[in-house]
Amino acid sequence: MKQHVTEPDGKLGVLLPGLGAVATTLIAGVEAIKKGLSQPIGSLTQMGNIRLGKPTDNNRPRIKDFIPLANLDDLVFGGWDVYSDNVYEAAVNAKVLEPGLLNAVRAELEAIVPMKAAFDKRYAKNLDGTHVKRADTLYELAQAVMDDIEQFKAKNNCSRLVMVWCGSTEIYFEESSVHASLAQFEEGLRNNDPAIAPSMIYAYAALKMGVPFANGAPNLTVDIPAMVELAYLTNTPIAGKDFKTGQTLMKTILAPGLNARALGVKGWFSTNILGNRDGLVLDDPDNFKTKEVSKLSVLDEIFQPDQNPELYSELYHKVRINYYPPHGDNKESWDNIDIFGWLGYEMQIKINFLCRDSILAAPLVLDLALFMDLSKRAGMSGIQEWLSFYFKSPQTAPELAPEHDIFKQLTKLENTLRYLMGEDLVSHLGLEYYEDLAQPV
Amino acid sequence: MKQHVTEPDGKLGVLLPGLGAVATTLIAGVEAIKKGLSQPIGSLTQMGNIRLGKPTDNNRPRIKDFIPLANLDDLVFGGWDVYSDNVYEAAVNAKVLEPGLLNAVRAELEAIVPMKAAFDKRYAKNLDGTHVKRADTLYELAQAVMDDIEQFKAKNNCSRLVMVWCGSTEIYFEESSVHASLAQFEEGLRNNDPAIAPSMIYAYAALKMGVPFANGAPNLTVDIPAMVELAYLTNTPIAGKDFKTGQTLMKTILAPGLNARALGVKGWFSTNILGNRDGLVLDDPDNFKTKEVSKLSVLDEIFQPDQNPELYSELYHKVRINYYPPHGDNKESWDNIDIFGWLGYEMQIKINFLCRDSILAAPLVLDLALFMDLSKRAGMSGIQEWLSFYFKSPQTAPELAPEHDIFKQLTKLENTLRYLMGEDLVSHLGLEYYEDLAQPV
Amino acid sequence: MKQHVTEPDGKLGVLLPGLGAVATTLIAGVEAIKKGLSQPIGSLTQMGNIRLGKPTDNNRPRIKDFIPLANLDDLVFGGWDVYSDNVYEAAVNAKVLEPGLLNAVRAELEAIVPMKAAFDKRYAKNLDGTHVKRADTLYELAQAVMDDIEQFKAKNNCSRLVMVWCGSTEIYFEESSVHASLAQFEEGLRNNDPAIAPSMIYAYAALKMGVPFANGAPNLTVDIPAMVELAYLTNTPIAGKDFKTGQTLMKTILAPGLNARALGVKGWFSTNILGNRDGLVLDDPDNFKTKEVSKLSVLDEIFQPDQNPELYSELYHKVRINYYPPHGDNKESWDNIDIFGWLGYEMQIKINFLCRDSILAAPLVLDLALFMDLSKRAGMSGIQEWLSFYFKSPQTAPELAPEHDIFKQLTKLENTLRYLMGEDLVSHLGLEYYEDLAQPV
Amino acid sequence: MKQHVTEPDGKLGVLLPGLGAVATTLIAGVEAIKKGLSQPIGSLTQMGNIRLGKPTDNNRPRIKDFIPLANLDDLVFGGWDVYSDNVYEAAVNAKVLEPGLLNAVRAELEAIVPMKAAFDKRYAKNLDGTHVKRADTLYELAQAVMDDIEQFKAKNNCSRLVMVWCGSTEIYFEESSVHASLAQFEEGLRNNDPAIAPSMIYAYAALKMGVPFANGAPNLTVDIPAMVELAYLTNTPIAGKDFKTGQTLMKTILAPGLNARALGVKGWFSTNILGNRDGLVLDDPDNFKTKEVSKLSVLDEIFQPDQNPELYSELYHKVRINYYPPHGDNKESWDNIDIFGWLGYEMQIKINFLCRDSILAAPLVLDLALFMDLSKRAGMSGIQEWLSFYFKSPQTAPELAPEHDIFKQLTKLENTLRYLMGEDLVSHLGLEYYEDLAQPV
Repeated sequence: MKQHVTEPDGKLGVLLPGLGAVATTLIAGVEAIKKGLSQPIGSLTQMGNIRLGKPTDNNRPRIKDFIPLANLDDLVFGGWDVYSDNVYEAAVNAKVLEPGLLNAVRAELEAIVPMKAAFDKRYAKNLDGTHVKRADTLYELAQAVMDDIEQFKAKNNCSRLVMVWCGSTEIYFEESSVHASLAQFEEGLRNNDPAIAPSMIYAYAALKMGVPFANGAPNLTVDIPAMVELAYLTNTPIAGKDFKTGQTLMKTILAPGLNARALGVKGWFSTNILGNRDGLVLDDPDNFKTKEVSKLSVLDEIFQPDQNPELYSELYHKVRINYYPPHGDNKESWDNIDIFGWLGYEMQIKINFLCRDSILAAPLVLDLALFMDLSKRAGMSGIQEWLSFYFKSPQTAPELAPEHDIFKQLTKLENTLRYLMGEDLVSHLGLEYYEDLAQPV
Repeated sequence: MKQHVTEPDGKLGVLLPGLGAVATTLIAGVEAIKKGLSQPIGSLTQMGNIRLGKPTDNNRPRIKDFIPLANLDDLVFGGWDVYSDNVYEAAVNAKVLEPGLLNAVRAELEAIVPMKAAFDKRYAKNLDGTHVKRADTLYELAQAVMDDIEQFKAKNNCSRLVMVWCGSTEIYFEESSVHASLAQFEEGLRNNDPAIAPSMIYAYAALKMGVPFANGAPNLTVDIPAMVELAYLTNTPIAGKDFKTGQTLMKTILAPGLNARALGVKGWFSTNILGNRDGLVLDDPDNFKTKEVSKLSVLDEIFQPDQNPELYSELYHKVRINYYPPHGDNKESWDNIDIFGWLGYEMQIKINFLCRDSILAAPLVLDLALFMDLSKRAGMSGIQEWLSFYFKSPQTAPELAPEHDIFKQLTKLENTLRYLMGEDLVSHLGLEYYEDLAQPV
Repeated sequence: MKQHVTEPDGKLGVLLPGLGAVATTLIAGVEAIKKGLSQPIGSLTQMGNIRLGKPTDNNRPRIKDFIPLANLDDLVFGGWDVYSDNVYEAAVNAKVLEPGLLNAVRAELEAIVPMKAAFDKRYAKNLDGTHVKRADTLYELAQAVMDDIEQFKAKNNCSRLVMVWCGSTEIYFEESSVHASLAQFEEGLRNNDPAIAPSMIYAYAALKMGVPFANGAPNLTVDIPAMVELAYLTNTPIAGKDFKTGQTLMKTILAPGLNARALGVKGWFSTNILGNRDGLVLDDPDNFKTKEVSKLSVLDEIFQPDQNPELYSELYHKVRINYYPPHGDNKESWDNIDIFGWLGYEMQIKINFLCRDSILAAPLVLDLALFMDLSKRAGMSGIQEWLSFYFKSPQTAPELAPEHDIFKQLTKLENTLRYLMGEDLVSHLGLEYYEDLAQPV
Repeated sequence: MKQHVTEPDGKLGVLLPGLGAVATTLIAGVEAIKKGLSQPIGSLTQMGNIRLGKPTDNNRPRIKDFIPLANLDDLVFGGWDVYSDNVYEAAVNAKVLEPGLLNAVRAELEAIVPMKAAFDKRYAKNLDGTHVKRADTLYELAQAVMDDIEQFKAKNNCSRLVMVWCGSTEIYFEESSVHASLAQFEEGLRNNDPAIAPSMIYAYAALKMGVPFANGAPNLTVDIPAMVELAYLTNTPIAGKDFKTGQTLMKTILAPGLNARALGVKGWFSTNILGNRDGLVLDDPDNFKTKEVSKLSVLDEIFQPDQNPELYSELYHKVRINYYPPHGDNKESWDNIDIFGWLGYEMQIKINFLCRDSILAAPLVLDLALFMDLSKRAGMSGIQEWLSFYFKSPQTAPELAPEHDIFKQLTKLENTLRYLMGEDLVSHLGLEYYEDLAQPV
């Protein structure tokens, strides 16, 4: 049975805290695509197909033609940053896109000037923000962000808004009492509790106003009881955390494959080199810790070592990130995987991924903006686990383990879309095709 | 509703045409496992778990504990080869397993002496078979194989048999009229039609006697109408073709991941180095052609370039195999994959897999033997597409495209097992976990 | 004692048979360098230093400041090609250099229009030349090339000329009687002997006129007695063959290092993927054979397996080149090297070189043009073995084995320059620095 | 003119502080070689040849046959360790060599029991030594080591001794006043100066007794004025520091090759994974610092960025070592090298070296023991720079920069041997071979 989803009428404002390499690559790209200059490769909503019915039906529409999503022409972008560069300047500095492309959309990019950021240097020591809000309390800071949102919506005549965190990774810290409930959190805002990170200010402001919030960094942000409570209270979707790109993407592709074949894994060493602002921030051990915890979590859930101790109980998993300026945004990963097969014989897999950090992340921001808006219009509030596909550390209901296998994540995402549109779920059984064959020809 | 599956009582004879590296690695391994000296790593039937019910049920039994399969202790091995070495001698020559392990099962291996092979040098020019059957017609040759089977069964007191082709790749040729129907094929047997390959002699003999047949090489063998007809006529399961190990295994793991993310692929270059008998046979261009066709087919079905021309229509796919004696059975693959993402920006993935050919293949032979026997006991005859998981070129019903995505193959396999045992199929939807959360806490 | 070298007064004409990717990359580069837009990276003559005297003298001038070479401003380029595109058009098609750079030197490049080629399709089946000379005999063809040279020299007011073969690899063939002496060769020219390859026509024309000739392809060309005889007769330097770039460059760097440490080598597998015109030509097995022989020769001379049988007598060396259009001129090599050390324990080295074919070759053409002109002015005629540094298959005196170790080649080159300029040769002994230390302090 | 070198009569005692993986691999190997069970692959003294005279003389004797070195049969081993395991037990724990080989020399290895170590946990926090000497002052500790040496020599009836440090890397510290002169150092021994590291105790003891000392770790040890003074005072050779194996070996092979071709280098990222005791010690940042400084130094000397700023002034060089237990002693390195060529176009080289730490190091210990003994017998005392070939950070005369180019190091080593034996030094000029050719044939 088809669920009720309201139509995406009017403009959708996409608000991005952090107008760095990822955000500017997204915005420049969407503007270029609007002009017919390029294509949204890497975006499942725009380029992906979904199979409906039986395989022999040959019915595989584009996802954007199957379910009502906002049209790219209706997107309007805005954001905050600790530097005052407009999006054109920021994109030039990021050195991700070629000058030719940036010039073609220069006017559109120059028109987007960042709002002043809610920043706290304790959470990102390697950044020197100058374009920042001043306020006596965190509560007032959150109010200032809400004022920004209000003004952006009015000025750009938006019917709906979504927010996607594209800022840096914050330093590592664990959930504490101030995060335990909405009441305690709001008390903390008024008391300037140091355990409230800047990203939480944005998330609080968004959720308070019913604006869906997705978190692209490994920060806690909405992954605390206080925010979950607020999300359900205001009927607002939330999702996170940490965009799954590059090495972890490869890991959640490959690990299910090894597991499918019951191959054992003794060790997995992952190293990265990158030279962009993200690499600079992660060069600080406190910030790297946040990322490391996020990156390390994926293998255990896929391999289930407690259920397969002969195969996975001795797995030694190590992840390293190295700041390496010569590569700029061209992040590169190298993995060594020590596996073993029949009778314990050892084999090795080496993967060298010459990727581009922001090129891989930008279409995820687009998809999340569109799907979070869909969730809102479909009346789905709180944790959107069906979007686990996009995250290194998917946020889930408390009793559930996160699903990291990208193929199960995709099945979950697609079956959710099929469910919303009243289509049959797909099980890949297909025994019926062989019944007719069983008659002598 | 649970299907009827008879119990696996008595001994299961596993008949292997081709007692080379793969077969001897399987046999030595099973004997070692029976003695508690080693473990069947890489075998889904022995080491894999299957999730039943909801994720929160935490019900993930071993597959062998879930569905009635033959026990390893009940397996008896036999086979044919063009060399007269017993299995111990052949295993020593293959240089796959360490002397220590082979010595521990020496008596069991020495007891298995190959029956004389049905061989035709035109189909494998780089082999010099000496231990071969002589017969005036192919029909008599097939009769001789059937006599072998009969004697093996009686001598070893087997209640059931299965046959898995572990021989070399035959030269490339396409389906022709002699393969079009059982009547034409049997006529060809009597006329010594040169388009009947040795592997077809074994398959015909097996199917005629109701023995399930799985094909581990890329040869046509049972993938012709005549054999399908015979399989349904004698209620015998068939499956094939070409064990999916090493590079193609990696390819069908990785390609679905790239496709899931709507990343474009411009080029995929795959090269292999190996130095075993298989490498020697494939050094002949005619034999390589058979393997090449099998290896090249996988990407098109996964990427569906006609449905995603912007992403996959220009994909240049090249596969090479190089005979390289220094590596012996330690096959090594190197892949370079040219992908593109957001706005067409290019990236590269390089994969270097230091694998072991026979170590990866042996557990597939075991699983296929056990699952083919299961199919027979479950009354499933003809093409077993649910075993696509194990093959580079899965055999399917005529109207169906083969499924190459290993994760869909696994879902198909697992849901088939669930179906046979009357368990719910798994769709990964899981929206129900989030309904209760939607109450303010 | 310093040798007599005449000064490089006037213009030096650089004549290039084959105005494809390599030649156009060279010419565009030199024009850009003349304008101060870029730098001659990769050119030893322009960027390299040479140590003079003792290490503590700290005397390391640039080579171009040490020995009298033609200045880049005095170079004039010309050439022949089977296509009529001017150098700008050919450079655009080659897709090696960025449009921005090519536009900055567009006028200079458009002014260089290829002369009609002496072409023979039998020697390069995958090429379809249309811009070719017609002549009744090879002798007349050679005369036509000489006329071209004469006119080029006059028109461009050159005081000196050099020729460097930048054309494709010709098919494999071995030295035969027509190559055995100048008399037989000239007889063959008149008789249209099919064993006279097009490259020999150019070489004959050049040498006849006293123009130094260097051979960048693995073709025989000047590496036959007839040409050596002619070179000495006309006091003309010759050198070849096959520019040492990419994989073979790496091989002659790495192999001496392994040999220095007395490490054994069991196998060396080298594969290449490239998609330019050179790749297309080498996709024909006959042309690949020529290249393969050249590429395979280097290891034996470095490892001397007859002198070190325990280390190198079992070395299995295999080289493959694969045409792979997605990469264009961005040639990529992958090597797997199986080595063994102490007590025979095995280790592996894998090298993946993401190189650019023409970027690596262009500065070699420049250096060879300048050094061949130097040789001529220094009165050194015939085989210039001291330029082995630049070649995969260095041409040597009949009784000498070619030197492939790039470090010995460099020492030879540098000591030749020191010798010409009357400087002490360098032996790296340096025991004298430790004599004074032997006094108690 | 040939120098005077006394004959290597009698037994040579090889004393090794640190009986871990490297030392036990050496000892087990030499014992196996003595029995004819294996070969000293990787040892230049045993397997290497040296060219004498002209290339056409074809005179390339084995080094051991050219210059009088101690015979392997005359070597006797001893050493110290913080664990009391005998050499057989330690070799078993090190998991470098196969049980079969170790059993063949078990008796010889069990007979070698470590003497108690001079240990200081401050210098290696990750080690827990239990088998250690107790003494009130460092001076007494040094006396105890001298007593050990004396007893070893007498007991084993040695005519000569050498000492090679095979212990762990000590924490990083810089030269200070206590190291400035022998007088200050001996004062420090009596005062228990904390800047005197354990390795210095061994070195002091050795030099005091005239026993040559080579340092296989990156510790300062003999690379301080006090020790140089002592070495010349007692006419004792010293050499160091840090065995050049694995990644740095590759680096000093490859970097000279890039430099030879005037290719620019923008970045060099080097990472290592290893899981032996050395890896554990280096997992402590203070110990890693010592190793890092040693590993980082090699590129600057080879590239001379001040002389070639266009090519090397922006080189970003980063080295990482990661403790990764699954690999044990099978150290593996991965390097990414960002180079640029003609007109600044960028290229990349990736090197993956699957090596074995102790297998590469063991033959260096052997060569150093034999060459240090040669130096002593040739009357060469103090710093043996001609052995730079073996070290990551060669010790040199104060006014000299260390030579890191392995090919210049080899030339220096070979020319030193030629000098000692009165042979001509080799310059690779060879122009004479071409003079005769210049006569018309």
